[in-house]
Amino acid sequence: MTTAPYRATERTVPTRSAERASYNRELVHAILDDAYLCHLGFIRDGAPVVLPTLYARVGTRLYVHGSTGSRPLRGAKDPGLAVCLTVTHLDGIVLARSAFHHSINYRSVVVHGTAREVTDPAERAEALDTIVDHIVPGRADDSRRANAKELAATAVVRLDLDEVSAKVRTGGPNDDPEDLALPYWSGVLPVTRSYGTPIPADDLTPSTPLPGYLSAH
Amino acid sequence: MTTAPYRATERTVPTRSAERASYNRELVHAILDDAYLCHLGFIRDGAPVVLPTLYARVGTRLYVHGSTGSRPLRGAKDPGLAVCLTVTHLDGIVLARSAFHHSINYRSVVVHGTAREVTDPAERAEALDTIVDHIVPGRADDSRRANAKELAATAVVRLDLDEVSAKVRTGGPNDDPEDLALPYWSGVLPVTRSYGTPIPADDLTPSTPLPGYLSAH
Repeated sequence: MTTAPYRATERTVPTRSAERASYNRELVHAILDDAYLCHLGFIRDGAPVVLPTLYARVGTRLYVHGSTGSRPLRGAKDPGLAVCLTVTHLDGIVLARSAFHHSINYRSVVVHGTAREVTDPAERAEALDTIVDHIVPGRADDSRRANAKELAATAVVRLDLDEVSAKVRTGGPNDDPEDLALPYWSGVLPVTRSYGTPIPADDLTPSTPLPGYLSAH
Repeated sequence: MTTAPYRATERTVPTRSAERASYNRELVHAILDDAYLCHLGFIRDGAPVVLPTLYARVGTRLYVHGSTGSRPLRGAKDPGLAVCLTVTHLDGIVLARSAFHHSINYRSVVVHGTAREVTDPAERAEALDTIVDHIVPGRADDSRRANAKELAATAVVRLDLDEVSAKVRTGGPNDDPEDLALPYWSGVLPVTRSYGTPIPADDLTPSTPLPGYLSAH
């Protein structure tokens, strides 16, 4: 398994804050693995469309799934669909003395490429398990896997990690020196994602225990 | 101020789960107001691009800002840039007995339209204040506002709410009747956004009190 950075291309080198960009493979993968909701952009009838969708990573491949009736997934049939898949973690609100230097701390990954429908049954099955386990580790084995009818209704789409970059901002505000004595509080308000107490389904058999992978939350 | 729903168009009527779509003005506005990070999609050199950015709403106008050097904001100069702006709240992970019926609870808004650079000084100033106050209410008045040089370096872009829709999923899993007796736990794992303890800047004058709008978090 290579550990070389991803290649920088014309469209993965940002015009702004280029010092925040990274092509480091481990960083890209860590940011992707720490989320499961992405925003997928594609072109429909000449106009951009951005839709939220779930995803998971297997090595250098990302998988997205959905109904065979969905427009972007239909569009991913051969020869594929040009997409931009973006994942963003909001980590903090950066309050500077000056309005201008307000910012956010974030970790984002932007993937450019061609999404292609996966037809191989084994790859499809692995991708679907991985999407479930990526969101709730251990859940795929603790659920009824898709039957033939459900599999036939599910499209799996693959996007290879090749033209991909990360961008990260961390740390405190970068106020100008002449603003440091201003009386405004400055610093960072941390933002995190939290999980609440699991809510059983109304029709759950009452004796069903809460699985360990949920009590850990 | 009208309370009529937004108009449904060919591209705002989803092909899937259309029953989750809404054009209700109050719902659309509430979802937009409950977030401040969106994913903005546009077309560059014939390919889709999706970038995270901050935004705020004023009536039926959305504002996005950034450096005058950023590519999408440069592209919003007259006659404007075709964009799709999407906001998604992840509210819960829906665990069904069947892998197929796993889902997420979410609230999303998708806006299609043309982003146009704002040149009017008063509208620009209001938009910049609103973006700051939308993220941290009360902060615009408690910071040094942008000076002429900073204003000259800041592009403000406006996207009118016209072709816009919301999509919402709430509630528990929708398992098939024949799966209800399966032994797998089913229900919803709630997901929320949380704020941590504010972290003062290293160079903050120690006597600076934490403002009330931050201690509320």
